[in-house]
Amino acid sequence: MSSKEIPYKIYLEESEMPQSWYNVRADMKNKPAPLLNPGTLQPMTAEELGHVFCDELVKQELDDTNPYIEIPEEIRKFYRMYRPSPLVRAYCLEEKLQTPAHIYYKFEGNNTSGSHKLNSAIAQAYYAKQQGLKGVTTETGAGQWGTALSMACAYLGLDCQVYMVKVSYEQKPFRREVMRTYGAKVTPSPSETTEVGRKILAAHPGTTGSLGCAISEAVEAATSQEGYRYVLGSVLSQVLLHQSVIGLEAQAALAKYDIVPDLIIGCAGGGSNLGGLISPFMGEVLRGEKNYRFIAVEPASCPSLTRGKYVYDFCDTGMVCPLAKMYTLGSGFIPSANHAGGLRYHGMSSVVSQLYHDGYLEARSVEQTSVFEAAEMFARVEGILPAPESSHAIRVAIDEALKCKETGEAKNIVFGLTGTGYFDMVAYEKYNNGEMTDYIPTDADLQQGFDGIPKFPGNEI
Amino acid sequence: MSSKEIPYKIYLEESEMPQSWYNVRADMKNKPAPLLNPGTLQPMTAEELGHVFCDELVKQELDDTNPYIEIPEEIRKFYRMYRPSPLVRAYCLEEKLQTPAHIYYKFEGNNTSGSHKLNSAIAQAYYAKQQGLKGVTTETGAGQWGTALSMACAYLGLDCQVYMVKVSYEQKPFRREVMRTYGAKVTPSPSETTEVGRKILAAHPGTTGSLGCAISEAVEAATSQEGYRYVLGSVLSQVLLHQSVIGLEAQAALAKYDIVPDLIIGCAGGGSNLGGLISPFMGEVLRGEKNYRFIAVEPASCPSLTRGKYVYDFCDTGMVCPLAKMYTLGSGFIPSANHAGGLRYHGMSSVVSQLYHDGYLEARSVEQTSVFEAAEMFARVEGILPAPESSHAIRVAIDEALKCKETGEAKNIVFGLTGTGYFDMVAYEKYNNGEMTDYIPTDADLQQGFDGIPKFPGNEI
Repeated sequence: MSSKEIPYKIYLEESEMPQSWYNVRADMKNKPAPLLNPGTLQPMTAEELGHVFCDELVKQELDDTNPYIEIPEEIRKFYRMYRPSPLVRAYCLEEKLQTPAHIYYKFEGNNTSGSHKLNSAIAQAYYAKQQGLKGVTTETGAGQWGTALSMACAYLGLDCQVYMVKVSYEQKPFRREVMRTYGAKVTPSPSETTEVGRKILAAHPGTTGSLGCAISEAVEAATSQEGYRYVLGSVLSQVLLHQSVIGLEAQAALAKYDIVPDLIIGCAGGGSNLGGLISPFMGEVLRGEKNYRFIAVEPASCPSLTRGKYVYDFCDTGMVCPLAKMYTLGSGFIPSANHAGGLRYHGMSSVVSQLYHDGYLEARSVEQTSVFEAAEMFARVEGILPAPESSHAIRVAIDEALKCKETGEAKNIVFGLTGTGYFDMVAYEKYNNGEMTDYIPTDADLQQGFDGIPKFPGNEI
Repeated sequence: MSSKEIPYKIYLEESEMPQSWYNVRADMKNKPAPLLNPGTLQPMTAEELGHVFCDELVKQELDDTNPYIEIPEEIRKFYRMYRPSPLVRAYCLEEKLQTPAHIYYKFEGNNTSGSHKLNSAIAQAYYAKQQGLKGVTTETGAGQWGTALSMACAYLGLDCQVYMVKVSYEQKPFRREVMRTYGAKVTPSPSETTEVGRKILAAHPGTTGSLGCAISEAVEAATSQEGYRYVLGSVLSQVLLHQSVIGLEAQAALAKYDIVPDLIIGCAGGGSNLGGLISPFMGEVLRGEKNYRFIAVEPASCPSLTRGKYVYDFCDTGMVCPLAKMYTLGSGFIPSANHAGGLRYHGMSSVVSQLYHDGYLEARSVEQTSVFEAAEMFARVEGILPAPESSHAIRVAIDEALKCKETGEAKNIVFGLTGTGYFDMVAYEKYNNGEMTDYIPTDADLQQGFDGIPKFPGNEI
């Protein structure tokens, strides 16, 4: 089929939208290692997990055998409000680069949360509602996940309590107000509302908070209130499952025009977007049906896949969550202060980690000034102001398209454009003013983080 | 056709997108009154207008006979990056309201400028480029128009100079940075870069600027630089022409599912969105083919249609532009300080004004707390955080749907959702905190504005 016949935006019909999520673990020969109870070092049981997470989500978290899990009708109804998301042919970017490559991006930013996070937020809120719960608690840093969860809870009439890292609460008042508009109760963390928060405030009166502390508060809030559970926006296998809707739609859209991708690129923080985008394609590879290249892109300032250790580690700096086996920089690792975008999580989804460990996936780290350079170019020719996170994938898509220009290959490059940057203008301002800098952690910097990884037999780094 | 078969979002195929804009003036028996030269009180000639505006746009401004004007291929290419915009069936809102009415909205917010303004920005930038100009100048208040123009100019490689009202420049740094990311030169107005700016600064050293002043600076900048012209985002007939793409797409989408609208609702500031949305439908009415009700919704705090005078007035507070015959509150009118949203223009498009004067259009004014109440409800059930401007239309759509609930009528209500509210969170915060108030100007307030309307024979108020 000639490229002329491919529209700028491929939209599926609503009837063509996925009816089930795809669970890539079912097709993995080497399953991701189980979550461990940090006290006993034994695999977490459904019962143990059920104190923190909804029952149905626990089931999904532990299910590594069923390839397809039906999407409940109520969730599909919600999806129809903002999905299918378009698969866009980046004609203008191709022209700008003068590349023979064909570039496509799956755009997840056309909803008020501004990212793909909504795909899992509605699922997690739905199961909480089904279980008859009153509400859910969570933490949020920059606010993308908190916004998505607020929207899902508003839709279902569920209470939503968000612990927002204090510095973000104060510096990102707009994100906070979006959440409040959706009826969420947003508390700056650390706060006086939890024991752990009071303890931290007493020890560090002037602290501006951290994601680790906010997680600890949200988990305490969930377990100390009748009818509440804690929810998390990335890293977990259940989240990757829900996000597979991205990849399934992309797969269907490509198939509609007989396009076979050569290369699939996603940015990676906790791995939810990357995992969701690549899952169905990876399934084809795992089943020996196809052969695609996958590239995970991470910031050079937070290089968990490219420079981390593949061991069991805490999922949170507060060390209240189970241990997960993953590529990690250590739960105490914090990117240098000049790091502007997201993707600052110290670890990586167990699913993505295992696939990377088994060689199914490449990883590349990029520096932030080059990321914003790509973001600016993309914005100017494609008209969408991308989130800094998404721009990591743009950077590598452009690099690969330029390689095609050298070799003359007309490769099909697909990347995930996870969201928009409307609430990230402080970072853009830094870039516009020429004040953005790069910092690659030294081996000594990384060693500090590695030193905090728990040591037990079989978990040597 | 049963409502069950109507999807949540009706998207046209790219091949179904309009090839021409529709010029409603061609079907009006009473043409809008011509722009007048404020010195001679004679109709502005093409030559006079050509000093300020691009030649092709002058032609469009003066053309009240050709019903269809072809959209150049380059503009249609740009439209394909973010259009067709969806016509959304508001199933969730209907359910929330328990109304038998069917509610549809044409959503123009899925692009980085966040509104419909991009439809005219690309057209105006294109004609400037075609004329071999170096760049364009404009003013912006809140920044929606400035952002749209920056995007269009970045795409075409045209210089873009934006005079941004100083108070907005300082209080809305994010909007400013979006424009800078698209390469625009953004100057806080009043500035030292123009004679009129220096004059105002000398007289009022502490001034935070006004739209009128920014227009004056932008016009001076255009006429004093070789190869520049001035562009405007609303009010002008050329802008309504470009915005007719909204109505044409809506018309095609409704026709695809045999939906006949009973009621078409749009918010009205300068009239660009309302005029664009209703134009093709109004054409059917003017030609005697159909009969629809149209409602223009404006803020009670800036009620140009519902309480203004239908006379010739200045388009800008600086009084540098031609006189236009329109419903106006006087060019010196400023909404009370508690007014939060946009739609603060003192006048109204000549086309919309004439249609209203001739009884083809109803007008309704609404108070802002009730507008934000509607915005919040809409956001929570439909998932889109609407711009305060757009929420005026939502308010009346909800009111009309509730009337249908009383009468049991299953009317088809269509409204224009012009944009998103991501950069309006200061106003939402006020509402969330219960600090938003209403103010309806008294007759004495309005009289002050009316006193500034120019007096000459035939222009008595």
